[in-house]
Amino acid sequence: MQSIKFKDNKLFYIDQAQLPLKEVWKQCRNLKQGYAAIKKLSVRGAPLIGVFAAYCIVVSLKNSPSQKRSFFKKLNESIQYLKSCRPTAVNLAWALDRIKETVLANKEKSVPQIRKAILFEAKAIHREDILLCENIAKQGVKLIKKGDRLLTHCNTGFLATSGEGTALAVIYKAAKVYRNIKVYADETRPLLQGSRLTAWELMKKKISSAVICDNTAAALMSSKGIDKVFVGADRVAVNGDVANKIGTYNLAVVAKYHKIPFYVVAPFSSFDLSLSSGKLIPIEQRNPDEVKKILNKVCVAPKKAKAYNPAFDVTPNKFITAIVSDRGVIYPPFRKNIVKVLGQDK
Amino acid sequence: MQSIKFKDNKLFYIDQAQLPLKEVWKQCRNLKQGYAAIKKLSVRGAPLIGVFAAYCIVVSLKNSPSQKRSFFKKLNESIQYLKSCRPTAVNLAWALDRIKETVLANKEKSVPQIRKAILFEAKAIHREDILLCENIAKQGVKLIKKGDRLLTHCNTGFLATSGEGTALAVIYKAAKVYRNIKVYADETRPLLQGSRLTAWELMKKKISSAVICDNTAAALMSSKGIDKVFVGADRVAVNGDVANKIGTYNLAVVAKYHKIPFYVVAPFSSFDLSLSSGKLIPIEQRNPDEVKKILNKVCVAPKKAKAYNPAFDVTPNKFITAIVSDRGVIYPPFRKNIVKVLGQDK
Repeated sequence: MQSIKFKDNKLFYIDQAQLPLKEVWKQCRNLKQGYAAIKKLSVRGAPLIGVFAAYCIVVSLKNSPSQKRSFFKKLNESIQYLKSCRPTAVNLAWALDRIKETVLANKEKSVPQIRKAILFEAKAIHREDILLCENIAKQGVKLIKKGDRLLTHCNTGFLATSGEGTALAVIYKAAKVYRNIKVYADETRPLLQGSRLTAWELMKKKISSAVICDNTAAALMSSKGIDKVFVGADRVAVNGDVANKIGTYNLAVVAKYHKIPFYVVAPFSSFDLSLSSGKLIPIEQRNPDEVKKILNKVCVAPKKAKAYNPAFDVTPNKFITAIVSDRGVIYPPFRKNIVKVLGQDK
Repeated sequence: MQSIKFKDNKLFYIDQAQLPLKEVWKQCRNLKQGYAAIKKLSVRGAPLIGVFAAYCIVVSLKNSPSQKRSFFKKLNESIQYLKSCRPTAVNLAWALDRIKETVLANKEKSVPQIRKAILFEAKAIHREDILLCENIAKQGVKLIKKGDRLLTHCNTGFLATSGEGTALAVIYKAAKVYRNIKVYADETRPLLQGSRLTAWELMKKKISSAVICDNTAAALMSSKGIDKVFVGADRVAVNGDVANKIGTYNLAVVAKYHKIPFYVVAPFSSFDLSLSSGKLIPIEQRNPDEVKKILNKVCVAPKKAKAYNPAFDVTPNKFITAIVSDRGVIYPPFRKNIVKVLGQDK
């Protein structure tokens, strides 16, 4: 179960925009195709777009100038271009910055050698992401008990990473240990990653699950139907504030009211310790048509109606019971413990 | 702007299932068609289905037996059948009970005379509903101020009643008084009455508005974008607990957290004083396909995925700032004040 493949110097991805109706693998042949794939969420999930972007740079180098100065110029432009694609998830910038650092560290070498170093780094980011998922699952599984009914938002599984996932990886591991885990998946409007992708993954994994409309979570909690909430993150600030798919904050507020533990699951690559607070995280505003015309197929609002379509929201740290990272479960006070658990190298 | 018409003994309705793409008027020729129209939400909105159901009985009498005993038998069966169509909104049962009482009060008369009395009562229910909307608007408008940004859920306008609406009628009146009212409409999954119907009404009324996904309300509140919430009701218990479209409770919890006034707007016909608490209100469970296949048009989940699809939820009284009724604005303590404001005849 993979979401991207890099083989014989070719980059392939499963087109998530077409799931679950069609499982179509596509090749990303150049930077523009990579940008478009990320932009329209054919490739999505904070960790995955980091890995994918690194490979996009590799792919983009195929026809790059052999003259060093032109090579650097084009490379920098490519990195800037790709970075601008989606502003909220920090993994995109983080992975591209690693490529940039690699280039810097190898700047005295020949163009073919630098190309090689970039390829090596992209593969390292890929391998590491798989490991991060494994470690996250190991850390998070301790939080789940037999019979737990878990609620999750958006998609945080093998489609969102290059490994098993973040929040869903924790759930997958728990489902192996305890047979009677039940998962509710928020459908996650507007792009329905919950019903399209998470429900699809859960069925592949043969885990008992049901989709709900996002607005149904509170009623389900009120009738004691949910024990714990697990969500992913697109960016975690140093104080533990979390930007994640729109609706996460809504879920956090209703979970807190119902005294239901609310866990955020994220690899260290999703932390942005340069930001003191979630208020500083840029929130991507997307096309109102995503709200008005579902999956670009069915109009559900008057043509001239306005719509407000932020792709993410920020959940303040006080709503978060703990953040499960690959390096350990982080409890409040987050400002102190995030640095402690992640270590100084982050 | 009407949602149903009764003319020359013929019952017509605008097919709300096709809005906003098509404005199609249909005739309801018999009981089965009436039942189907309510069941599939071609005719919807608690007050409207009461009025419509009363007329459905009128229509069903066209071919009823002339022999009195058979007439009563068929009439009672028709009423029972129609009542069973949707269990949550009390207006359906309330209107049909009025028809039943009319029959009882006229039981000594001839069949043609009883038919006439039923027609008279149905028209009275219709006329009253229009008046209730007017009175509600007058009562509620006091709660709105210049520049208010209001959030509403589902549809509570002229499509949901036979008059101007309940919560939306209040907003329409306020928009006449103050020019700079802004309305956010929750899209209201699964059947999208907010984006399909409320946005459509608001555009017809030329009121500044925007549609949001249901999961976006909390983020909007957090950024100080909402001043007040106005929703309708399908049934109000004597303690002030309110059953309304799924997602209302979710909205009430996030409104309370953000200290935003949360107003429920309902005519006296939506109150069920026989129920001591909202816990006793039956909640209609609808077909999971409404979640999985949007508007029966686009599949958004794996075919075999399960979905949980309650059509309503219950908001406990403590979340409600006030209930706007046609007879006055009711503040807590609701158990005392509902009876006081509605009077003993309810």
